[in-house]
Amino acid sequence: MTLPAENHRTHEAAGLTRRLADFVERTRWADVPAVVRHEAKRSLVNYFAVALAGCSDPAIDKAVSVYDRFRAGDDAGVIGRRERTDILNGAALNAMSANVFDFDDTHLPTIIHPTAPVAAALFALAEARQLSGEALLLAFVVGVEVECRIGNAVSPEHYQRGWHITSTCGVFGAAAAVAKAVGLDAQHIVWALGNASAQASGLVETLGTMSKSISVGNAARNGLLSALLAADGFSGPDAPLEGERGFLRVTAQRPDFSAISEGPGREWALLSNTYKPYPCGVVLNPVIDACLDLRRDARWRFDEIERVELTGHPLLRERTDRPGIRSGRESQVSAQHAVAVTLARGKASLAEFSDAAVTDPSLRAFASRLRFIDDASWPVESAQVTIVLHSGERVSRRVQAARGSLAAPPGDVELAAKLRELAAYGRSGVDPQALLDVLWQLDHEPDSAAPMRAARRVA
Amino acid sequence: MTLPAENHRTHEAAGLTRRLADFVERTRWADVPAVVRHEAKRSLVNYFAVALAGCSDPAIDKAVSVYDRFRAGDDAGVIGRRERTDILNGAALNAMSANVFDFDDTHLPTIIHPTAPVAAALFALAEARQLSGEALLLAFVVGVEVECRIGNAVSPEHYQRGWHITSTCGVFGAAAAVAKAVGLDAQHIVWALGNASAQASGLVETLGTMSKSISVGNAARNGLLSALLAADGFSGPDAPLEGERGFLRVTAQRPDFSAISEGPGREWALLSNTYKPYPCGVVLNPVIDACLDLRRDARWRFDEIERVELTGHPLLRERTDRPGIRSGRESQVSAQHAVAVTLARGKASLAEFSDAAVTDPSLRAFASRLRFIDDASWPVESAQVTIVLHSGERVSRRVQAARGSLAAPPGDVELAAKLRELAAYGRSGVDPQALLDVLWQLDHEPDSAAPMRAARRVA
Repeated sequence: MTLPAENHRTHEAAGLTRRLADFVERTRWADVPAVVRHEAKRSLVNYFAVALAGCSDPAIDKAVSVYDRFRAGDDAGVIGRRERTDILNGAALNAMSANVFDFDDTHLPTIIHPTAPVAAALFALAEARQLSGEALLLAFVVGVEVECRIGNAVSPEHYQRGWHITSTCGVFGAAAAVAKAVGLDAQHIVWALGNASAQASGLVETLGTMSKSISVGNAARNGLLSALLAADGFSGPDAPLEGERGFLRVTAQRPDFSAISEGPGREWALLSNTYKPYPCGVVLNPVIDACLDLRRDARWRFDEIERVELTGHPLLRERTDRPGIRSGRESQVSAQHAVAVTLARGKASLAEFSDAAVTDPSLRAFASRLRFIDDASWPVESAQVTIVLHSGERVSRRVQAARGSLAAPPGDVELAAKLRELAAYGRSGVDPQALLDVLWQLDHEPDSAAPMRAARRVA
Repeated sequence: MTLPAENHRTHEAAGLTRRLADFVERTRWADVPAVVRHEAKRSLVNYFAVALAGCSDPAIDKAVSVYDRFRAGDDAGVIGRRERTDILNGAALNAMSANVFDFDDTHLPTIIHPTAPVAAALFALAEARQLSGEALLLAFVVGVEVECRIGNAVSPEHYQRGWHITSTCGVFGAAAAVAKAVGLDAQHIVWALGNASAQASGLVETLGTMSKSISVGNAARNGLLSALLAADGFSGPDAPLEGERGFLRVTAQRPDFSAISEGPGREWALLSNTYKPYPCGVVLNPVIDACLDLRRDARWRFDEIERVELTGHPLLRERTDRPGIRSGRESQVSAQHAVAVTLARGKASLAEFSDAAVTDPSLRAFASRLRFIDDASWPVESAQVTIVLHSGERVSRRVQAARGSLAAPPGDVELAAKLRELAAYGRSGVDPQALLDVLWQLDHEPDSAAPMRAARRVA
């Protein structure tokens, strides 16, 4: 008998979109706790950091060139680049750029990269109409909340099945954020979410290809468009989320409606947001931590290493045992490459996981020297790396909670350092300190487009 | 043991997208049988007919107004309207307009409305670059084939689950058609389909609302964009359709890969395409046929009718027993309204299924006079209508195969009449005969944009 459960779920489902829209309409800046406000700014610092690196990627170059043929204005900038475009294109291109390396933030319960779609839509809007920093931050907090709550309701099945959850849920977040920023009432917010529901797309199959960027860009662009259409009275269904043929039931067998309905305004998705220290699969975080540690105190040379033993949860081996890689993108999920490059260079940033880095013969030769030791009792955020030298000497480092996990989040100083480093990587000539200054003070900034001006390419 | 079946399916799946792309690349006009060529032109006549009616719908007015703010050029026209726009917007708005009343064509095995996304993308392209009528028709045939084969592979589960199949499969058809029209090779066609896979969206929940039009418009727009991106080297996955996390497996539990792989070039989807004679749910077709027949020979007045008995498959009652309707859209699936308005007025076109028509008190009062008689032995394309007069006299008409079914397709003359009637309904001032002349001769027309010029609003 599943009837009681079904009834319970039907009860939870009734009016779900409308209740979420009510939350979006009525939430004020005063309702947002200080720790959430600050996390919003940290997310934006990380967003501009990754966008400043991504903006020079070949996928972004190609997208900018094709989208430029359909440029209806020059209100919007592209972070770290010279081009100007209209706000729909701007939203798309900046979201693409921030996500192209998968180096952006991660909402742990869903693995949504929440900021790219929402922030890109909001900053594009901010370049076209007056919006205070406080208003943008409030809309951002609310948009991320909508995006991640919808993601929670369909997780883990949705992503496992093959939906690129950042894209599919991002369009709702962007729509809700823009709807908030332009001051729509609850009925119009429901329509904005309905217009977004017609545009939710993105497949895991496209990961590792340029196609992925289209859906991430669309999440921002189409979320923005959904809200602008709703503002003009373009109406949608009453129950785009919870309806019989709505987003939740169509993209998950057993959606958890309570993940949306329970706790908005009390629990905040941004407090489960994390920031990658390295441009790699998150299971490699403790491995790279340990290698950086080993290298910092090294009394050995890289060519003295006989072999390396890697102890961790079996998931570590299953996800990252990739010896024969050929591209920078593959290297981001290869333990062989991550260990070799980090021990050899003492760094683990984008340059170490690039197409150029994987061609280094000494790193390629190293692949056969790695041994995995599975131990299912280890949490995934921990690992141990043991170096065995030709001399027989053994040196070990064990990491309990990797940098970038919720237990060891980066400090503000580290996030700022990430922005400085990635700004340099992208060669945009952007002054990172000026950008950081305006981002950390965004809630007191009368014009929320100020960070976009500070992130314009000047070189 | 499901392994043998699974292995069989895996075998069928291998290289599926590439094989479909090969079909798109290598098919020539000489390979297309005359009957398919002619059906393509019939589909386009029906497309312009429904777009000329839809172009004055409020949803299209609103979409044109919002999209106009993001107009990057004026290459493209909007059928039956004065506005000019860029080709991406043009593709979107014309697909919306052709589908807004669900009065467009129906590919029976999938209930895809195949022409709107594919034709709208191609005619937009044709307005921006030289493309002969023959080249457009070939690209159209191939695009519809891709769209409907993908639809066959995921049917019936895909639509039943809640995917708006015209939108989700239409984006692939538009991408394939434009890829063919611009001469991409098979590898680039695979990328175009991959770029489309990232954008496949649309929910049944949005039917009956303006939101639906967004996804139909996007199918055309984003299919066109997918091919233009691929042409510029924007690359996608190798297996966007058959991959483990590709479109087919993500949107259907048990996709039928053979529906794509078997018979392309021998079997043609366009030969299963049908054209609605009335702007209603297809199960009402035989009912309306019978009512029109009864009315033609009537020796009774509408107010002499005591009751009407409607005999047909139970599906007829289940789908259309709707006495208390309040909108034109609802009236399109109401047997009570369809019978009343057709018997009263002797017509069954858009005006009879409009918001204005449902307010007629005599039609509303008639609802209680209808009796359904279920008979599961009747095919759904048949029905019997019996009028019982106050005098006790009974008059009956039985329809075996409704107009618009594959067994009773409209002739070219009827399709032309539909275009004339809908052109008048849309009040665009377009000369229907000039448009028909160019459409029937499109394969001999050097400039395939000619029909768009003939469909420009002049009044």
